[in-house]
Amino acid sequence: MSDRDIPRNTVDTILTQVASRRTFLRNTAFTAVAAGALSACKTEKQGAGGAAAGTSAETTQTAEAKSSAAGKDRPGTDSDQSGGTTGAHPEVTPAMKARQAADDMDRMHEAGVKAFPAKTEGKGNQPLAPKIVGGVKVFELTAKELQWETKPGKKVLAWAYNGQVPGPQIRVREGDRVRLVLKNELPESTAVHFHGVELPNDQDGVPFITQPPVKPGESYTYEFTAPNPGSHMYHSHHNAAKQVGLGLLGAFIIEPKRKRAIENVDVDFVMILNDGMHGYTLNGKDFPATEPVVAKLGQKVRIRFMNEGMMIHPMHLHGMHMTVIDKDGWPQPAPWKCDTLNVAPGERWDVVVNCNNPGVWAFHCHILPHAESDHGMFGMVTALIVNK
Amino acid sequence: MSDRDIPRNTVDTILTQVASRRTFLRNTAFTAVAAGALSACKTEKQGAGGAAAGTSAETTQTAEAKSSAAGKDRPGTDSDQSGGTTGAHPEVTPAMKARQAADDMDRMHEAGVKAFPAKTEGKGNQPLAPKIVGGVKVFELTAKELQWETKPGKKVLAWAYNGQVPGPQIRVREGDRVRLVLKNELPESTAVHFHGVELPNDQDGVPFITQPPVKPGESYTYEFTAPNPGSHMYHSHHNAAKQVGLGLLGAFIIEPKRKRAIENVDVDFVMILNDGMHGYTLNGKDFPATEPVVAKLGQKVRIRFMNEGMMIHPMHLHGMHMTVIDKDGWPQPAPWKCDTLNVAPGERWDVVVNCNNPGVWAFHCHILPHAESDHGMFGMVTALIVNK
Amino acid sequence: MSDRDIPRNTVDTILTQVASRRTFLRNTAFTAVAAGALSACKTEKQGAGGAAAGTSAETTQTAEAKSSAAGKDRPGTDSDQSGGTTGAHPEVTPAMKARQAADDMDRMHEAGVKAFPAKTEGKGNQPLAPKIVGGVKVFELTAKELQWETKPGKKVLAWAYNGQVPGPQIRVREGDRVRLVLKNELPESTAVHFHGVELPNDQDGVPFITQPPVKPGESYTYEFTAPNPGSHMYHSHHNAAKQVGLGLLGAFIIEPKRKRAIENVDVDFVMILNDGMHGYTLNGKDFPATEPVVAKLGQKVRIRFMNEGMMIHPMHLHGMHMTVIDKDGWPQPAPWKCDTLNVAPGERWDVVVNCNNPGVWAFHCHILPHAESDHGMFGMVTALIVNK
Repeated sequence: MSDRDIPRNTVDTILTQVASRRTFLRNTAFTAVAAGALSACKTEKQGAGGAAAGTSAETTQTAEAKSSAAGKDRPGTDSDQSGGTTGAHPEVTPAMKARQAADDMDRMHEAGVKAFPAKTEGKGNQPLAPKIVGGVKVFELTAKELQWETKPGKKVLAWAYNGQVPGPQIRVREGDRVRLVLKNELPESTAVHFHGVELPNDQDGVPFITQPPVKPGESYTYEFTAPNPGSHMYHSHHNAAKQVGLGLLGAFIIEPKRKRAIENVDVDFVMILNDGMHGYTLNGKDFPATEPVVAKLGQKVRIRFMNEGMMIHPMHLHGMHMTVIDKDGWPQPAPWKCDTLNVAPGERWDVVVNCNNPGVWAFHCHILPHAESDHGMFGMVTALIVNK
Repeated sequence: MSDRDIPRNTVDTILTQVASRRTFLRNTAFTAVAAGALSACKTEKQGAGGAAAGTSAETTQTAEAKSSAAGKDRPGTDSDQSGGTTGAHPEVTPAMKARQAADDMDRMHEAGVKAFPAKTEGKGNQPLAPKIVGGVKVFELTAKELQWETKPGKKVLAWAYNGQVPGPQIRVREGDRVRLVLKNELPESTAVHFHGVELPNDQDGVPFITQPPVKPGESYTYEFTAPNPGSHMYHSHHNAAKQVGLGLLGAFIIEPKRKRAIENVDVDFVMILNDGMHGYTLNGKDFPATEPVVAKLGQKVRIRFMNEGMMIHPMHLHGMHMTVIDKDGWPQPAPWKCDTLNVAPGERWDVVVNCNNPGVWAFHCHILPHAESDHGMFGMVTALIVNK
Repeated sequence: MSDRDIPRNTVDTILTQVASRRTFLRNTAFTAVAAGALSACKTEKQGAGGAAAGTSAETTQTAEAKSSAAGKDRPGTDSDQSGGTTGAHPEVTPAMKARQAADDMDRMHEAGVKAFPAKTEGKGNQPLAPKIVGGVKVFELTAKELQWETKPGKKVLAWAYNGQVPGPQIRVREGDRVRLVLKNELPESTAVHFHGVELPNDQDGVPFITQPPVKPGESYTYEFTAPNPGSHMYHSHHNAAKQVGLGLLGAFIIEPKRKRAIENVDVDFVMILNDGMHGYTLNGKDFPATEPVVAKLGQKVRIRFMNEGMMIHPMHLHGMHMTVIDKDGWPQPAPWKCDTLNVAPGERWDVVVNCNNPGVWAFHCHILPHAESDHGMFGMVTALIVNK
C-alpha cells in the first residue's frame, strides 16, 4: 500500500473511525472536524483518574468566559484595546479580558487543527508511471514555472517538474534500464542530478563538470541502469540554491531486487522536508494542508525522510518510536530506535513504525518555530493516524 | 548519587581538593577562586618539559606590562582613548597599549571563570517528590509567570513549572502508576506533552488533537502507567514555540525495571540545553551560573543530554570521551565513543563518562558563539570536575 | 600517499587523463579547462543511449521563441532596460533576451568551474615536520595576523599559525613524546587546546582553568605523550569565537600504533570545514580555490572531516558512497555507509571511499547556499577526481 493510495476522503473516514473509539474524543475539536462536524470545544476535564483539582477554578473561569463572550457579541467590543466600552460594562475585568485573549488564541489554534488536512490546489510527490520503450522505463519531466498553493490561499512562485512540488515520485527497480527526458521550459538553464545514485560520471547532471547546461527550450536525456537501491532524490544541480529552493526536486527510489524482512511494510510514505522560499513544508505543503500518514492498528509504516532544504529538521513522532533502518539508501549495521530523528540537508533516513498505538499522533519538526506560532500550528506538522 | 545531591559548598570543597593536587595550579585563577581566595594570575610558564623558548620575549613583555601598569595607576591613563595623556607620559607606547588591551580582555575572561559556579536566585531541574495516593505517584505542577535569574544580575521573563526553569525533574519507575496534575496560572491556555513517552492517545497532551487546552485558572489531570523507560521530557505542546521558549519544560525520566550493567553509575546528571529567549543555557543557567558535574577519580558519570531549544548544540567534553549508550531513551545497538555529541532539538542522548582523568575540564557547546565572546565565556559552558 | 603529495600540476595532469577517457567530455568546459585549453561550451545533447526526445522540441521552442519575440517586440511590452535599442534592432525579442540572460548566468557558472582549482597565495594544512630534540618531537607554532587569500582576489584578515589557514597539519604517533612551543605574536592573549586529545589537565590549554593566557609577545610550551589515536584538532581556546573564527586552528592527528585493516588507504585527506569570517571554506579556501581530492581507479581514500565552524555542514559526495569508520577519532562499532555526512562544529568523522567510479565528482556541502549562487558555485565545493 503506497501513501499515494489514500485519497483525502479515506483519511476523513479513518478519522471518523478513530473518533468513535473513545467517547470523550467526540468532544474534541480535531476528531469532530475529522468526522465532518465541529462541535464547540468543551473544556471539561478529560484526563483519566479521579483527581479533580481545579474544578472550582474552572467553573469560575467558564462563567467569566461566558460573560466575556457575551460582551464580545455586541458591536465594537471585539477589541482588547476598546477602553471606552469597559465603562459601559463594568463587569469586564482584567481577568475576563485575559480569558478572552486566551480564548481568541485557542480559537486560531483550533481552526488550524480543524482544517487539517486542508484542501489545496495541486499535489506533489505523485507516482509517475513510466512508458516502456523497448524494455526501457522512460520518464518525462518538464520543468516549468507556476504558482503553487502551499496552504489554502497561500500561493508561491515555484519552478516545478510536471507541475508538482515536490516533483513526481519516481520508483524503479534495481537493474532496470531507465531513461529520463528533461524538458526545460524555464527561463534559466538547468540539469538533473540523481542524488545518491551511483551513476556513470556522464549521467551525474552537474553542468560544466559532467554535461552542458540544458538551456531554456531545450531537452536533455539521461539513461542508465538503476544501480544501488534505496531512497534517493533527483533535483537540479544548476544554480541549485535557487532552483531547488523553488521546487525542482523529487524522490527517486530504487527498489531492491531482494527486500530485507524489515522492508515488508504495509504503508510506504515519502516525506520530503523543505524550508526557505516556500516556507516550512512537508511534501510541498504547509500545515494544515499537509497529508497525514494513515495506517491500521498493527500495520507497519515505512517513512522515507528526505531533506531538500537548507536547515536541519529533527522530526518527532508522538506515541510510538521509529526504528531507523537505512541512511542514504544504505542499511545501517543494526536498526536502532528513536522518536526524534535529525535530518540534515541532502540526507535520507528510512524508518519503520510499528503502529501499535491507536489514535491521531502529532508528527512534526521539533524546531518549534518551524511548527507553531501564536496563530496555531503551521509548517512542518502532520499526523500519523493509527486506526483501530 | 544524583546530581541534585551536590550542594554548592560541596563543589567548592571539591574544587579546593582539586586545587591542591598540583602545586602550580595554586597560581591559576580558576582553582584559586574555587578555593575561595583569588591570587593575581601569574603568567610564568607552566608547561611540562624543559623547553624554554620565548623566555626573553616574556621578560621583555613583562617589563613593558609593569611599566604599562604603572602608567595605569596615574589618574586619567586608564583609557585607551586618552590621547592627551600620552604627551605627558611619552613612555606609553603602542605596544604598551596593546598589552593593556590584552590584559583588559583577559581580566574579563578571568572574572567569568573566577565567578564559576556563580550563585543565582532559583534553581531548576530539582527532583520532585511525588505524593503517594492509593499506590499512585502524584506530581503537581503549577505553571506560572515569574522572573528568572540566568546569571548574576540577569533576570528574564519566564513561564515556569513550580517556579523552576527547567521545571522539576520527575523520575518514576517503569510500571509505576503516575498522576500529574497541571494547574495553569498563566495568562494563556496550555497543556503538558510527555515527549518520548508512549502513552495512550488521550494522555498525549496536544490541544484540539488529544485534549482541550487547559485555560487560565483551570487544572487538568494526566494519569498513566509509566511505559518505555529512558530519558524523556515533559513540556507544553500549546503555543509551544513561545511557551517552551519561556521555560515550560522539564526532564521526565522513567527508570527501567532492570538496569543494564552499563547503567551502574555513580553520578546521574541531567543536562537540558536551551537557547532563545533566555539566552544560551544549561539547566536554565548561563555561565558562570551553570552547575558543574562533579565526580571522584574512577567514578562513572551518566549525562542525559536533552535539547529543548531551537538549535543544535554539539556538546564537547575535554579530557575524556563520552560513551553513547541511549538515544531518546532507547539503547543504541552498541555503545560508541565520542568527545563532541551533536544534540538536536527534541533529542535526548545518554552518555557515560569514565572519570579516569583528574582535573577541572571545560564542557561546552562547540558552536563557539554559544560559549564565548570578547567578554569571556558565557552561555553553554560548564565543567566536569574529577576529584582525585 | 598523503594529500600533501599532490602538487597542482599533478592535478592538472590527472584531469587531462580523465578528460581523455570519454570523447564527449572533450567538449565540456571543466575538463577542457583542466587540460589547460578551454573550448567554448557546446550545448548539443550528450546523454547516453539512443533517445532523441527533445530535438524537435528544441527546434520548435526556438521557433516559438522567435515568434513570441516578434510579438513582444512592440515598444513598452517587455523591455529589459534596453528601451532605446529595440527600435533599432527589431530582431532582439524577449525570448532572445531571456536566452541571453541564461547564457550570461551560465557563463559565470562555467568560469568558476573552469578556474578550478584556482591558484591563490598561501596554502594551509601543510605537514609540519618536527625537530627531534632528545627523542621528543618538537613543533613550533607562531600565531600572527596576516592577510589570507581565500579565492583569487579575495583577501581576508586572518590570525594564523605559521602563516597558514588552517594551521600546519601535525601528525604524530601514539606514544610519541611531543612538545609544542607556541609563540604569540598577536595583539591578544591566546592558548592552544588539543581538541579530542586526552591529556593531563595542565596541558589542556584553557586559560584561567588549566593555564594562564599566553600574552602578546610571550611563548608557552606544551609537552605530553600522544595518547588516544585518531583525527583530532588544535585550536585557540581563548576568546575562541573570534580567534578560531579568524584562523587559529589546525589538524592534530595521532596515528595508531597498529592500524586496522580498513585504515590501509592510498590517499589520506584532511578536510577542515569552516564558515563565518572567512566565508564558507574547505581547508581555508573558497571554491574555485579549493583543492581536489585525487585518486586512481581502485584506490582507497580516507577523508578526515573536521568542522571548525559555527554551523553544521552535511558533506555530499557524488558518484560513490563513503564508509564511515571513526567518530572523533574513535572507531564506530561497525562501519556504515552514506553519501551525505552531517558534520557538526567540533566533530571529526573519518570515512573511506573505495574509488571504483572514474570521473570528476562534485563534492560539497549540501546546504546549497553554502555552495552555489546565481554567480556560480562557491564556498564549500571541491571534487573527488578518480583517474582511470
